[in-house]
Amino acid sequence: MKEKIKEIRNGQVNIADVFWSPIQEKVIDVAIPFQEKILNDEVPGVEKSHAIENFRIAAGLKTGEFYGMVFQDSDLAKWLEGVAFSLAVRPDAALEARADEIIEIIAKAQQPDGYLDTYFIVKEPEHRWQNLHECHELYCAGHMMEAAVAYAESTGKDKLLHVTERLADAIIDRFGPDEGKEHGIPGHQEVEIGLMKLYHTTGKEKYKDMARYFLEERGKDPEYFYQEKVKRGWQHWGQYSLEQLDVSYNQAHATIYEQKEAVGHAVRALYMYTAMADLAGTDGDGRLYRACRTLWDNVVNRKLYITGGIGGNPEGEAFSNEYELPNDMAYAETCASIAMVFFAHRMLEAEMDGAYADIMEKELYNNIISGMQMDGKRYFYVNPLECEPGVSGKLFGYKHALPERPEWYDCACCPTNLVRMVASLGKYCWDESESTIYSHLMIGQKAKLQKAEIMVRTRYPWEGETVYTVTPTTKEEFTLAVHIPYYVDFGREETRLTVNGERIDAQEILQKGYVYIRRKWAAGDQVAICFPLEARRVYASQRVRENAGCVALLRGPVVYCFEGVDNGEMIQSLRIPRDAAIKPCVCEEGILKGNVLLKIEGCRMAGSGELYSEKPPVKEKAVLTAIPYYAWANRGETQMRVWMREE
Amino acid sequence: MKEKIKEIRNGQVNIADVFWSPIQEKVIDVAIPFQEKILNDEVPGVEKSHAIENFRIAAGLKTGEFYGMVFQDSDLAKWLEGVAFSLAVRPDAALEARADEIIEIIAKAQQPDGYLDTYFIVKEPEHRWQNLHECHELYCAGHMMEAAVAYAESTGKDKLLHVTERLADAIIDRFGPDEGKEHGIPGHQEVEIGLMKLYHTTGKEKYKDMARYFLEERGKDPEYFYQEKVKRGWQHWGQYSLEQLDVSYNQAHATIYEQKEAVGHAVRALYMYTAMADLAGTDGDGRLYRACRTLWDNVVNRKLYITGGIGGNPEGEAFSNEYELPNDMAYAETCASIAMVFFAHRMLEAEMDGAYADIMEKELYNNIISGMQMDGKRYFYVNPLECEPGVSGKLFGYKHALPERPEWYDCACCPTNLVRMVASLGKYCWDESESTIYSHLMIGQKAKLQKAEIMVRTRYPWEGETVYTVTPTTKEEFTLAVHIPYYVDFGREETRLTVNGERIDAQEILQKGYVYIRRKWAAGDQVAICFPLEARRVYASQRVRENAGCVALLRGPVVYCFEGVDNGEMIQSLRIPRDAAIKPCVCEEGILKGNVLLKIEGCRMAGSGELYSEKPPVKEKAVLTAIPYYAWANRGETQMRVWMREE
Repeated sequence: MKEKIKEIRNGQVNIADVFWSPIQEKVIDVAIPFQEKILNDEVPGVEKSHAIENFRIAAGLKTGEFYGMVFQDSDLAKWLEGVAFSLAVRPDAALEARADEIIEIIAKAQQPDGYLDTYFIVKEPEHRWQNLHECHELYCAGHMMEAAVAYAESTGKDKLLHVTERLADAIIDRFGPDEGKEHGIPGHQEVEIGLMKLYHTTGKEKYKDMARYFLEERGKDPEYFYQEKVKRGWQHWGQYSLEQLDVSYNQAHATIYEQKEAVGHAVRALYMYTAMADLAGTDGDGRLYRACRTLWDNVVNRKLYITGGIGGNPEGEAFSNEYELPNDMAYAETCASIAMVFFAHRMLEAEMDGAYADIMEKELYNNIISGMQMDGKRYFYVNPLECEPGVSGKLFGYKHALPERPEWYDCACCPTNLVRMVASLGKYCWDESESTIYSHLMIGQKAKLQKAEIMVRTRYPWEGETVYTVTPTTKEEFTLAVHIPYYVDFGREETRLTVNGERIDAQEILQKGYVYIRRKWAAGDQVAICFPLEARRVYASQRVRENAGCVALLRGPVVYCFEGVDNGEMIQSLRIPRDAAIKPCVCEEGILKGNVLLKIEGCRMAGSGELYSEKPPVKEKAVLTAIPYYAWANRGETQMRVWMREE
Repeated sequence: MKEKIKEIRNGQVNIADVFWSPIQEKVIDVAIPFQEKILNDEVPGVEKSHAIENFRIAAGLKTGEFYGMVFQDSDLAKWLEGVAFSLAVRPDAALEARADEIIEIIAKAQQPDGYLDTYFIVKEPEHRWQNLHECHELYCAGHMMEAAVAYAESTGKDKLLHVTERLADAIIDRFGPDEGKEHGIPGHQEVEIGLMKLYHTTGKEKYKDMARYFLEERGKDPEYFYQEKVKRGWQHWGQYSLEQLDVSYNQAHATIYEQKEAVGHAVRALYMYTAMADLAGTDGDGRLYRACRTLWDNVVNRKLYITGGIGGNPEGEAFSNEYELPNDMAYAETCASIAMVFFAHRMLEAEMDGAYADIMEKELYNNIISGMQMDGKRYFYVNPLECEPGVSGKLFGYKHALPERPEWYDCACCPTNLVRMVASLGKYCWDESESTIYSHLMIGQKAKLQKAEIMVRTRYPWEGETVYTVTPTTKEEFTLAVHIPYYVDFGREETRLTVNGERIDAQEILQKGYVYIRRKWAAGDQVAICFPLEARRVYASQRVRENAGCVALLRGPVVYCFEGVDNGEMIQSLRIPRDAAIKPCVCEEGILKGNVLLKIEGCRMAGSGELYSEKPPVKEKAVLTAIPYYAWANRGETQMRVWMREE
C-alpha cells in the first residue's frame, strides 16, 4: 500500500538560492506591499481595485458602492494567502498586524448565516447563490479558504480559518446530494481546492466530502447552468451577457470520469484537476487518479506550450484544439501555469512520478515568472511566445498579447496568484512520507523536515551541480529521493551521483525520475548530483503548424528566447543552423546580470528588399543572442521569438 | 502631350478562351440566374436578400418592411451591372426583359426630387442624408450609376441612366463647395466612380466636377463625420454603433494629396483610388496622378498578398501594417481585389505602365476567381492563404476565414461584384487611343476595335504562346502595343516576338512593359509572342514575419497552393528543396481537369511523434502536388497553404 504523503509547511523551507532568492525577495519586498497599496486604492493611475474597500462596505465600516469584478474578493484572498506564505519565511510584525486588521474586516463582513461575498452582500443581497454559473461566489469562497489555511499555518492564528469554516458550513448547508439541498456546481472551480485544504487542516471529513460532491456532481446534468438561468429569469452578470451556454467552457459537459480532453477555460479546468488529484491522492482513489492522468496526458502531450504556457485560444482564456499552439496569439495565462504547478504537485503526492516534477519545473522557470517584471511591479496576464511591436497588443487577433507588462488589470487574477505562488515556493520543493523525503526541485535552501534538516547548495538552473547535506533527526534508516530532471542522462560519464563523494550507480536506484537513496544517515552526509548543462535543441511535433521548421533552445529547465534588442531588427530572418555552436555565457551587466545567455553562431537571411522576388535570400553570418524566456520584455518594447527557424 | 485613351465597350470583345470562357460561362449561365433568384428571395435556406422586394416596397408596388443591410440596394445594382455586361457578350432577350422590369421598379421607387435609396424611403424618410458616415446612400447611388451606364452601353436603353442622372443632380443640389450646400463626403467611397462614369457617358462636366469635389473635400475636415454625428444627435446605424470615429478607416484623416500610406477599409480605399486615377487620367492631372502612384506603390510594395489579396487586418476589412500579411488570418476580400483591377485599369489609362497590367493579371488569375466555386454557386468573401480545418472559420482570430465557400452572405457585396467583374472582362483587355491599340491581357477572343478587328489565340496561362491576328479597318499606320508580363525575359533565346513569322528585337520596342509594333497593317498580319512558362520560386521580403523561410510557386500569373487532399495530412511538414525539380502537368480528370498542376520532388519531415522532442525531424522523400490557388476548396474541407517551407 502506498505511503501517506505529508505536505510540508512553507515555514519549513528557507530559500537561499542564486536564482529564486532575488525573485522571492522581489515578491516579498516589492510586490506584496505594492499590491497592498493597489488593493487599498493607494496607487494612482492604475486600474482601480477597491477590493479592501468592498469588504469595509460589506462590514458596515464604510458606506459606498461595490466596485470591480463580481469576483473582486478573490484578489484580496490571494494576496492574503501570499502574505501568509511570506510571513512564514520572513516574519514581519507590521505586515502581520495589517493582515490581522484586514481579517477583522473580513470577519465583520461575514453574514450571520456564514455567507461571505462582498458583491452580493453590498449590491444584490437578494440574488445570492442564484448564478453559480457566472458569479463566482464559490470561487471566492475557495480562495478565502486557501488564504485562511495558509494564514493559520504560518501565524497560528485561526480567526480567518473559523470564518471560512462557517462559510464552508453554509455551503454544505445549501448544496449537496441530499433531498432539499441544491444539486449545484460552481461556474469557476476553486472551492474544491479550498475545501480539500480545509479538510487537510481541520481533519473534518465533511469538507472533503463536499469537495468530492462538487467534483462528482459536475457534468452529471449538463443542463444545470441552463436550468439555473431559467430559474433566475435569464438574468446575467456584467460582461457575460453574451456568453453562450457552452458548458464545456466550464468543464460541465461530462462527468470528471468521462472527460478525456482538456477543454474550456484553462484555469477552471486546472483548478478542477488539482482538486481531483488531491482527492485521488488523499483517498487513494485509483479510478479518480486515472481520470486525472488522462487529462494530464492530454494537456502535456497535446496542449502545452514549450514554456509551460497553457491556453492556445484567447477566446475564453481557453484550451484550443490539440496541437493548435499559436505563438504570437498565445494566451498562456500566468494563472494557468500556476494552476498547472498545483495540479502537478497534487499528482506527485498521488504518485511520485518525476514527469510531474518536470512540468512543475517547466512552469516555474518559464511561464510563471515571465508574469512578473524584474522590478516586481508590473505583470503579464498573457505570455505569448512571439511578440511584434505595432501588432502585439494592438491589432485584431493580438490585442490580448501585450508587448510589455502593465501595472494592473481590471481582472487582476494573475498578479496576486503569482505572489502566492512564489512566496510558497518552499512547499513545492519537498514532500515527506513515513519512510522517505522527496526532493522535487533543486533550489538552494535550508529545510527542516521531520526526519532531517537538509541544506541544499546549488547554482541551478545555471549550473548542473546540487549538493544535499543531511542532518538527520532520527536514528532510523530513511530514504532521500531526489528528482532528476528528465533531460539528465546518467549514461554519460560526466553525470554523477555521489554519496559522501563516492560515486554510486544512479541508474540502479532511479525510478520514475527519482533516485532513491536509503541508508542510516549521519550528520553531514552529502548527496551530490552533477550533470552537464548544455543548450538543447527542441523540436515540436509536426502537427504544430506554427513551429514547423523551427527549433527552440533550452538549457536545463530554462526556455530561451530571442529579442530584437539583442539581435537587431527582423528577428524572423535569423536562422539557427542545425550544427551551430551554442555557447552559454553569463551576462555581466544590466538587468539580466547573472543570467546565463546563449550565443549562437547563426545566420541572418538577407532578402532582395522587394516585397516579392525570385532572388532567394542570401545567408549572412550572425552571432545570435538568446536570453531566458522569463526575462523577456524587461528592456523596452522589442521583437521576441521563442521558436526560431532552423537552417 | 499624352493621347486620350478611349475605354472600350464590353460588347467589342467576344471572349473565346481556354481559361476564361468556362468561368465567364459559369457567371452568365449559373451565377447571374442564381443570384437573381437570391435577390428575389427564391432560394430557400440561404441568407435572405430582399433586395428587389425593398425596391418594390419603395415603389409602392408592395407593402412590407425594408430588410437587409442599409446598403442592400447595391447588391441589386451590381447584379444589374453584371447583367448589362453579360447582355453585351451574350444577348438574352428574356433576361433583358426581366432586367427592364426591375429597372421599371427602380424608376418607380425614385422620389420626386430624385432621391433613391430604399432603406431611407421605406424606413426612415426623415433621416435621409444625415448619416453619410455609416449609411451608404452615396455608395448605393454610385453603384446604381455604374449599372445605368453599363446597361445603356449594352442595350442602348437609357431609362436607368436618366434615373441616375436625376439622382446625381439631387446629390449635386445638396452637396458641394458652394455656400448653402453641405460640404459632405461619403463614408464609403463609390459615388466618385459612378459620377466619373456618368461623365464619360453623358459628357456632362458637372458629374466630373462633383466627383472631384467629393475626392478633394475628403480629409479637409477630419472632424466632418464627428460633427455629422453630433448634428444628428448621436444616432447610429445597426452594427456600427460601437464603431469608433477613427476616420482613417474611411480615408478621411487627410486629404488625398497628403495620404502616403494605404490605410483603413480596403475596398473604400481602392474605390477612392480608382476614382482618383480616373480623374487624373481624364484631366491629365499630374499632381493627382502622383498622389495615386504613391498610394499604388504603398499597396503593391508593402501590403499586397502574393495572390493579389488586399487587407491583412480582418478588423474593419482593412489594410494592416506594412508587411503584416498573416496567411491563415488574411482578409483578402474578393471585392478588394476586384477594386484593385479597377484601380490598375484607371492607372493604365493614365499611364501605360505594364506594372499596372501585371497587377491586373495577378488579381484576375488568383484572388478574384478564388472568390467563386467552380460550379458558380458558392462564394468566398475572404480568401486566406492558409486554411486549417477545425481552426479556419471556427476559432478566435480565424472565424472570418472560412474553409469552404458558403452560398450567400448577409453582407453579400462580393458575389455580385464578382459577377460584374467577370462579365466585363473584355473591357480590361484593351484600350485604344488615336494612334495605338493596347492589349493588356492575353485572353483568347475576337475584338472589334476602332482601327482593327483582332483575333487572339492563346492557351495562356497554361502555355506561353499568344497570337494576335489583325484585320485593320484603316489604311493608316497604327501601333499595336502588347503588354508583356513582368516575368517574361526577352534575353532568353526561347522567348520570341514575331511579326508574320519574322522575329523582331523585342527589347528595342519594349517600353514600360509593352512592345510597340507600329506599321501599316494588312489583313491577316500576325503578331506572336512566345515564351517558356516555367514554375517560378518566389520569396517574400524578410520583413513579412509569416513567410520567413518559405517559398511560393507561380507559373505565369497563376499562384499555386498545396491542399491536403493531394498531399496527405500535416502539409506544414512538407518541404520544397531549393533545387527540387518542379514539373507542370495537365490534370486529366475531376473538377480540376485541364488545369496545369505542379509536381515537385519534395520531402516530408517526419517527427518523433512527441509534442516536444530533442530528436530532429527526419526528411523523407515525397512528391508534392500544387494546384492553382484560385481552385482551392473545390474538393471538400482540407488543409491548404500557399507559402511552403523551403529546405
